[in-house]
Amino acid sequence: MDKLRKIYAECGADALFLEQDFIRRYLTGFYSTDGYAVLTREGLSLVVDSRYYEAAEKALKGSAVRLHEGLYQQAEALLDGAKTVGVPYPFVYLSRAETLKKSGFTLVDCMPALKTAMEVKTSEELAFIQKACEIAEDAFLALLPELKEGMRETEVAALLEYKMRSFGASGVSFETIVAFGANGSVPHHETGNTKLKFGDAVLIDFGCKYGGYCSDCTRTFLFGDDKKHEEFKKIYAEVLTAHELVKERTHAGMTGREADEIARGYLREKGLDKYFTHSLGHGVGLQIHEYPVLAPRSEEVLSDGMVFSDEPGVYLAGETGIRIEDTVSLTNEKVQSFMKKTERNLLIL
Amino acid sequence: MDKLRKIYAECGADALFLEQDFIRRYLTGFYSTDGYAVLTREGLSLVVDSRYYEAAEKALKGSAVRLHEGLYQQAEALLDGAKTVGVPYPFVYLSRAETLKKSGFTLVDCMPALKTAMEVKTSEELAFIQKACEIAEDAFLALLPELKEGMRETEVAALLEYKMRSFGASGVSFETIVAFGANGSVPHHETGNTKLKFGDAVLIDFGCKYGGYCSDCTRTFLFGDDKKHEEFKKIYAEVLTAHELVKERTHAGMTGREADEIARGYLREKGLDKYFTHSLGHGVGLQIHEYPVLAPRSEEVLSDGMVFSDEPGVYLAGETGIRIEDTVSLTNEKVQSFMKKTERNLLIL
Repeated sequence: MDKLRKIYAECGADALFLEQDFIRRYLTGFYSTDGYAVLTREGLSLVVDSRYYEAAEKALKGSAVRLHEGLYQQAEALLDGAKTVGVPYPFVYLSRAETLKKSGFTLVDCMPALKTAMEVKTSEELAFIQKACEIAEDAFLALLPELKEGMRETEVAALLEYKMRSFGASGVSFETIVAFGANGSVPHHETGNTKLKFGDAVLIDFGCKYGGYCSDCTRTFLFGDDKKHEEFKKIYAEVLTAHELVKERTHAGMTGREADEIARGYLREKGLDKYFTHSLGHGVGLQIHEYPVLAPRSEEVLSDGMVFSDEPGVYLAGETGIRIEDTVSLTNEKVQSFMKKTERNLLIL
Repeated sequence: MDKLRKIYAECGADALFLEQDFIRRYLTGFYSTDGYAVLTREGLSLVVDSRYYEAAEKALKGSAVRLHEGLYQQAEALLDGAKTVGVPYPFVYLSRAETLKKSGFTLVDCMPALKTAMEVKTSEELAFIQKACEIAEDAFLALLPELKEGMRETEVAALLEYKMRSFGASGVSFETIVAFGANGSVPHHETGNTKLKFGDAVLIDFGCKYGGYCSDCTRTFLFGDDKKHEEFKKIYAEVLTAHELVKERTHAGMTGREADEIARGYLREKGLDKYFTHSLGHGVGLQIHEYPVLAPRSEEVLSDGMVFSDEPGVYLAGETGIRIEDTVSLTNEKVQSFMKKTERNLLIL
């Protein structure tokens, strides 16, 4: 309830009106595809429809959240007496904003307050992310011995996702990317029907959800060494150094730009920065992409409790792509990786 | 390009600005997590960042879509000269709307035009949905012989999802719902750790994506007959009749309310309508929930080419839940089911 009061106070509105599934889950702990969380002076209310009422009743037993059954009208009725209503501008749809305005409410953006709260994780949230990372790593390790020549990218993705689900994930945190050979040079390659060949470089970007929280991990490795990978190995070593330097040197108080520059600056020294075509990292939590942003133009200040990806990459169009990514946290002002089981040194199967 | 011109003309704006992934895919055929589709008098442009440029170039070769690499600024620049810009109010975020307004554009809602176009599927779209339904059904049939006493709901969901992926789906269209026994009485039960027992009623609500398009299916069956299911069997037969009546009697020209009433009216005659706590169905396409809506308050007129779910259900709190759902289309003014492989009559394993 402390975090609620803080968000509420910072926002300066009479009430907050929140219908985004991840924000509802953040505030109440209960997940449903539809519903409304309304925060007023009187406290926090959750409005869900008949499909979710029974489950919400069980889940919220003993909590301070007041539960109501209903649809939008019931949620709006809870705003009775409020003049200024806070909604998250980057996540509220224009049609909803128009409806609230027509009902006479003045809208203010509560996202700055929500963002500040949500980007610093509680120990309970960190534990969920840790578990989501462990499941992903266990699944990856269980996948490796089952890789065989001739398997398609889609088969490998399906198998990895099955293992994550079997190990306890509620689902994937994004569509798994599996890229064989030159396909890796497209950073967001669409997993397809390419078959695995001896000597292929394999890039797998994967993650799962646990308790609503996401993990995000990328590993690049060789499926057998056909001795044609001298260049690949050299670049791999540079990407790995960039990745590890970020872990060593990033600290609380630094900006997202400065963290990004650790990797980008190193790759620049090696003449590889022009092939590092995306940003270093993004926040990870109830959403796969959230705050903070680690990128050349991010002036956001990093602080303890933040969780983000460390994912430098080098992409040589039509040839190969290398990305090494961990989900990490800032703890005691230093970077700690959630990924403790899988190898970051070049793996040759 | 015909559908584009129609949407554009109907909307009455100088340009359309569309950054929703499913709308971009609808207009260009190309999928990316981020990007902008801009429609002007000059034609359709797609703006994607460096991660997607290479893949988009390949995919759009020979099409009339003009491709640009860039971020928001590049996309906004394409609006140069426009005064009125159409955005889909139910899907555009308030922060984006504010940015566009600050740049001097007047916004109008292009969703009515988009909705009208998107809810009537082309033969190509119908083929993708057919395939997504076939994959889901094949996976379900492959799952049945592997069900064993003691399996957890999550394991069954993982296995079914793996089979859908293996049979060619790019992913699930929503988190699979598996409910054993009394868990079925929560229409949107969160798949958990309950173990399968002999005699359990099993409710599985599942779907997958193919070519971006969704399928949606629910089957309820008995895992062995412990002879305690007289009531269950009676209700099952009524839900099935409601489901089949919808298929027989729904036709083009009817409203969503009238279609809903076919099932609801029948269940009312049997004294079961108070346990049918949700609407009859929803449109299915690039999104799992889209137009048309088949519900007591929907005055939408159904027409050929529309695709929706037919999913009556009866839920007895704490006891059991029965839902039977097909994804269907209106073709030659009549309902045709995409589901041709799985049994709708009560299955007893």
